[in-house]
Amino acid sequence: MSGYCRATYRCYDEKADFGKKAQGIAVGLTVGSWTDLPEARKAEMEKHLGKVVSVTEVPAAESPTGERYADIVIDYPDINFSRDIPALLVTVFGKLSMDGRIKLIDLDFSEDFLSAFPGPKFGIEGVRKQLGVENRPLLMSIFKSVIGHDLPNLREQFFRQALGGVDLIKDDEILFENPLTPLEKRVEACMAAAAEAKRETGQELLYAVNLTGPTFKLAENAKRAIRAGANALLFNVLAYGFDALAELARDPEIHVPIAAHPAVSGAIYPSPHYGIAAPLLLGKLMRLAGADLVLFPSPYGSVVMPKEENMALKDALTSDGLPLRKSFPVPSAGIHPGLVPLIHRDFGLDVVVNAGGGIHGHPLGTAAGGRAFRQAIDAVLAGEPLREAAKRHDELRAAIEAWGIKE
Amino acid sequence: MSGYCRATYRCYDEKADFGKKAQGIAVGLTVGSWTDLPEARKAEMEKHLGKVVSVTEVPAAESPTGERYADIVIDYPDINFSRDIPALLVTVFGKLSMDGRIKLIDLDFSEDFLSAFPGPKFGIEGVRKQLGVENRPLLMSIFKSVIGHDLPNLREQFFRQALGGVDLIKDDEILFENPLTPLEKRVEACMAAAAEAKRETGQELLYAVNLTGPTFKLAENAKRAIRAGANALLFNVLAYGFDALAELARDPEIHVPIAAHPAVSGAIYPSPHYGIAAPLLLGKLMRLAGADLVLFPSPYGSVVMPKEENMALKDALTSDGLPLRKSFPVPSAGIHPGLVPLIHRDFGLDVVVNAGGGIHGHPLGTAAGGRAFRQAIDAVLAGEPLREAAKRHDELRAAIEAWGIKE
Repeated sequence: MSGYCRATYRCYDEKADFGKKAQGIAVGLTVGSWTDLPEARKAEMEKHLGKVVSVTEVPAAESPTGERYADIVIDYPDINFSRDIPALLVTVFGKLSMDGRIKLIDLDFSEDFLSAFPGPKFGIEGVRKQLGVENRPLLMSIFKSVIGHDLPNLREQFFRQALGGVDLIKDDEILFENPLTPLEKRVEACMAAAAEAKRETGQELLYAVNLTGPTFKLAENAKRAIRAGANALLFNVLAYGFDALAELARDPEIHVPIAAHPAVSGAIYPSPHYGIAAPLLLGKLMRLAGADLVLFPSPYGSVVMPKEENMALKDALTSDGLPLRKSFPVPSAGIHPGLVPLIHRDFGLDVVVNAGGGIHGHPLGTAAGGRAFRQAIDAVLAGEPLREAAKRHDELRAAIEAWGIKE
Repeated sequence: MSGYCRATYRCYDEKADFGKKAQGIAVGLTVGSWTDLPEARKAEMEKHLGKVVSVTEVPAAESPTGERYADIVIDYPDINFSRDIPALLVTVFGKLSMDGRIKLIDLDFSEDFLSAFPGPKFGIEGVRKQLGVENRPLLMSIFKSVIGHDLPNLREQFFRQALGGVDLIKDDEILFENPLTPLEKRVEACMAAAAEAKRETGQELLYAVNLTGPTFKLAENAKRAIRAGANALLFNVLAYGFDALAELARDPEIHVPIAAHPAVSGAIYPSPHYGIAAPLLLGKLMRLAGADLVLFPSPYGSVVMPKEENMALKDALTSDGLPLRKSFPVPSAGIHPGLVPLIHRDFGLDVVVNAGGGIHGHPLGTAAGGRAFRQAIDAVLAGEPLREAAKRHDELRAAIEAWGIKE
């Protein structure tokens, strides 16, 4: 409905009158009280009143968890809140989040609300353009271990990753400002390594440096990193709030892609009864706030998210339903070359294959680890079984021997 | 241990080797790998390595949920992260939050980490001093409905609340910047009402105006509110992140108490299997970040938190274990005068009795609603049963007739 943002909740209760509960939410989170208002006042207040759109009850016998629940859909008037994510979240799931077993499943934004969000500055197309790579999944590499390492060591790790033909390298999300590898020095050392590798690979490369520090200095730190040569940023969005990301993405001086890390999000999305569903938390809200790339646990690897949720998350990042640039999905954790066929089947071309151990742990070394992934990607795009391609490629063969193929 | 911050997790798993899991966390979230390192490198990296302190396994038969779990305690070296809450949370519960059924139960801060946090600027003593009230629980009132109301209406609501003898009045947390009651005008109108009421009651009063807007403008908005006369702030901490609160609390120009609202926290604390426990989320971290008052669901009212958790939360806000000023506990939601004996029994003197419907819904009106609470507080402090005191006080008697007494 124009002028309203829509929230969908899943609410568990053995015996609640869900219709009454929905009315209570729609009134309680907007005008506060309704039936007691004089008629004249109702006419004035109507435009501030939340509206119950639907209540779909599911009895225990038909519920996946064996518990009775209802999906409740409510429209909230735009006029009640400012055009920012904290205001929307506090309105639709502030007090309500504490009121029993209820999970926020989805949000739909009004045109007017959306108009305040430019979304990703680069998105899938923009990131591809920066890298000059149009027709294949991208490959991202994660530093193996960075804490306690000095600049020469970091530079060397970076160089070996870059030699393997990766498109992006991201900092470890737990690397903060520190005397061994401070922000600007780190950027300079890694970008120098990128330039050196480019002379061998001929490839562009984005280095997503971890943006950390006090909230009110994030923009300044981002600009310091960019001045030092950073061509991408990594950001722990949940640790700072979605609005910090939105403001960074909105800042015209921060003209590099931002990769959103899902750190701490597991405190919010996995419970069936509480929290905010992953496709909303790591999908729609990240894209709205302006993440060009979004990392999240894949359904394949070591830290997993159920397949159905993962596909809904991908859709939220890439669907045409939102008038915003698309965010690159980066399914992560425990990824090795033998998973590339599955990743391609589920995510298509517009995906970033992201690996840490699957690159650094390669039997022939880090650079070979990157090459094995690139070989796997090429084989999959050519419709060639990995085992066939492995006959020609030592790196891919060694990877498959180490980790197998999952189909 | 000096130089380390300590995290306690509760980890559910039917068959995991919890000792191995704990080692994996201690290494994986710090140096990344350990057993493969050459001995010389181990000596250098030792100071960056996390340490397993204890693993306490509880079999299914003895577990409250009937599921096997372990409490795992790990020390993280300060040297690995910067002195801010995002860095600490991302270190100890970033990736880990997504790795199965695991909840962050507690954090203990090293002296060095703590030294970066001044904590609450006022705390319980400072707030009491501002109000000139030393020897009784405070009384806070919440606007009934504010959305769609204009300034005269808001002023009138404020005045009636103030007349009842409340010590603090808080904005509704869902009131954002809006044309009817913009921040500065709202502060001016409400502070004028406070001055007018003071002529009748002789009482000081804090008005916690809702601090909202873009993250990077929060400090500026806080100062605008203060220049307009605001003598307290309300802040939706979870919507903006703990660090935003810490920076506001640290700013010497923001010299008014800050009340932390728990909006959206229900997405994080209630699940037994995921998230961050309430005593840490709404207790220790709020106090560390500098909240002078912290609202949270009480164990008595309409939106409830289990008693044991509530008492642990209170302890986190007020214990002598932290070298920081104490934060005022504000157990909220569904509070009426008949609950004051319970609140006093559980929280003692240092508590803010906080009511919305229990004040505005009073049969004799809003001002009478405040008076009924003050009468209940006085009776409890005098050791007099509420039913006795109600014989002398019309307001208290009407409240008890409406809502009863819970003992």
